[in-house]
Amino acid sequence: MHRIERTKPDGRRLLLYARAPLDAAGDAPSPFAEPLRGAPHLRWHPLRGEWVTYAAHRQDRTFLPPPEYDPLAPTRDAAHPTELPGGDWEVAVFDNRFPALAARGDAPPPAGLSIPVAPGGGHCEVVVFTQDAQQALTTLPLHRFELLLAVLADRCADLSRRADVAYVLPFENRGAEVGVTLHHPHGQIYAYPVLPPVPATMARVAAEHHRTHGCGPLAALIEAERRDGARVLYAGEHAIAFVPPCARYPYEAWVAPIEEARTFEDLSPAQRADLARAWKTVLMKYDGLWARPMPYLMGWYPAPVRDAAPGWHLHAQFHPVLRSRERLKFLAGTEIFAGLFAMDVLPEATAAQLQAVAAVL
Amino acid sequence: MHRIERTKPDGRRLLLYARAPLDAAGDAPSPFAEPLRGAPHLRWHPLRGEWVTYAAHRQDRTFLPPPEYDPLAPTRDAAHPTELPGGDWEVAVFDNRFPALAARGDAPPPAGLSIPVAPGGGHCEVVVFTQDAQQALTTLPLHRFELLLAVLADRCADLSRRADVAYVLPFENRGAEVGVTLHHPHGQIYAYPVLPPVPATMARVAAEHHRTHGCGPLAALIEAERRDGARVLYAGEHAIAFVPPCARYPYEAWVAPIEEARTFEDLSPAQRADLARAWKTVLMKYDGLWARPMPYLMGWYPAPVRDAAPGWHLHAQFHPVLRSRERLKFLAGTEIFAGLFAMDVLPEATAAQLQAVAAVL
Repeated sequence: MHRIERTKPDGRRLLLYARAPLDAAGDAPSPFAEPLRGAPHLRWHPLRGEWVTYAAHRQDRTFLPPPEYDPLAPTRDAAHPTELPGGDWEVAVFDNRFPALAARGDAPPPAGLSIPVAPGGGHCEVVVFTQDAQQALTTLPLHRFELLLAVLADRCADLSRRADVAYVLPFENRGAEVGVTLHHPHGQIYAYPVLPPVPATMARVAAEHHRTHGCGPLAALIEAERRDGARVLYAGEHAIAFVPPCARYPYEAWVAPIEEARTFEDLSPAQRADLARAWKTVLMKYDGLWARPMPYLMGWYPAPVRDAAPGWHLHAQFHPVLRSRERLKFLAGTEIFAGLFAMDVLPEATAAQLQAVAAVL
Repeated sequence: MHRIERTKPDGRRLLLYARAPLDAAGDAPSPFAEPLRGAPHLRWHPLRGEWVTYAAHRQDRTFLPPPEYDPLAPTRDAAHPTELPGGDWEVAVFDNRFPALAARGDAPPPAGLSIPVAPGGGHCEVVVFTQDAQQALTTLPLHRFELLLAVLADRCADLSRRADVAYVLPFENRGAEVGVTLHHPHGQIYAYPVLPPVPATMARVAAEHHRTHGCGPLAALIEAERRDGARVLYAGEHAIAFVPPCARYPYEAWVAPIEEARTFEDLSPAQRADLARAWKTVLMKYDGLWARPMPYLMGWYPAPVRDAAPGWHLHAQFHPVLRSRERLKFLAGTEIFAGLFAMDVLPEATAAQLQAVAAVL
């Protein structure tokens, strides 16, 4: 993998990645001329015991592009710069102009609240999967998934070295149904200044399982799923995709290396190649299921930063937001207020439907 | 409060409530003639350490009523029974025909999974707020809110006596935007066989706060909010409504008795009357904000069953699902995968908007 780094006029960083060496010349455009201002801050939720991040400056988005303007397309006209240059890059990463998480010295948190507050910290990046706005992640070649896994390894390693980062979450929100307004294929990386509630719970649960069973809960589950096969969507030498028997969303699927890995950097080239196949297989089955682009949320779970995290097992979770071709899955009373998920459909049934969808890589 | 109890032809229980004595004659209709079948079961999520409930029989809803048919309206024509009789009831509660939670001896959980499974347990009820489908909870008179609080006290006391109930959550999902297809004003009560993740965390956090500060976190917050006033929507002698300084949703609001109460049964008539005013005030401000019925989720948090729960403080949380008149608030990558909420708008700003909306009780 080749990478070059540039700085945008407003101080943000731009990283370009490709399999072949990149032309290091050229500029780092930005649609924004004015310097960055504002900063997020954190407030403590005293009933749930967790932090909430506030980024009121995100509403300052005065930039109103024409509808055909795509900020993630390569800049064609220097008078109307996008976020990205032309050239032969395959994947690009840049600092989010309106981050939900950021460390900035110039914006102290509000005073006078009775709950704990803290200055913002962490970092938000945008990951552009392709120069071509007409593609989707699903339709990109297998080698692009491999490159993306290498890019995620680079980003997680880099972000994990920051003193203000405790957890790194790469994710993709896809589709208007989940609120996405920018359809150019892209994901995001949130680097959190605190360990968020879900990975904190997962680390605690995995460590407990490791202590009592000698392995993590996902390693045990993968072994059982490979043996059973009823919910498996992809079974390779090094990677697996399956509908978890404890699915909380219709058509939920997980993708993981078979051998326990803490994070992307731990993967060998062979593991990465097979994980790419598992990843692309799930997306192809999603889009094939109802012959329409499946709206989904995808999140990758690397291990917490600076934490032994015994039993942790890198994996991705995919949550489609449909329960049938036309019907949305809503989170309502029980999921939102109790956190206990209620499913009308068995994982075995959705797995059988997804197994029946052809996915030729 | 007066209450009468009847049994439907399919074995489900019907409870009718009113301020005046009810006519005990009359039948307990049901749109369903066939006996109940199927049962939910629980599966353990080994990565999150929580139960998920599966109710595949909920998809057996062969009953296809005409679009104008309202199962929550009083039965007018004995040939087409609804869930409810006519008469002078004000609030009705009946067992959900398709419960996500239920104890039934005839449906063992599936065998052969590698994760723990358990037979279903608990109970699901439907709470009908009025006979009139054209009303909304917002437009009902204040005395109906008082009656509802008394009904919730009755239901929570009753359900809490069941051996298979560890937590009782009354909630309302309102609006097509949250997936509601039945617009007759109603809520639901889920009585869980296990303590769900959110109240479990809240109980732990409250007990810790009580140990270190001598009071629960909500009592401390309410005292500070009353003093500050910046986020208060209703300030009565016994009850308060406010936008929490740690709001996780735009226009989120909480309603609580000022004095710590574990559950609905602990409330005096004066507390109940003032809590009803706080509750109705929030709903009126919501519907007045953009002169449209506000879609929202509302959940009431009584204390866990059979748990000392020091520092627990009964309250309701309201989460509108809009962030502006036309735009939905979506939960996406950071909320779903990390559990860390990112807000673009400050609680002080939404509180000021809601404060400006008149709500004359």
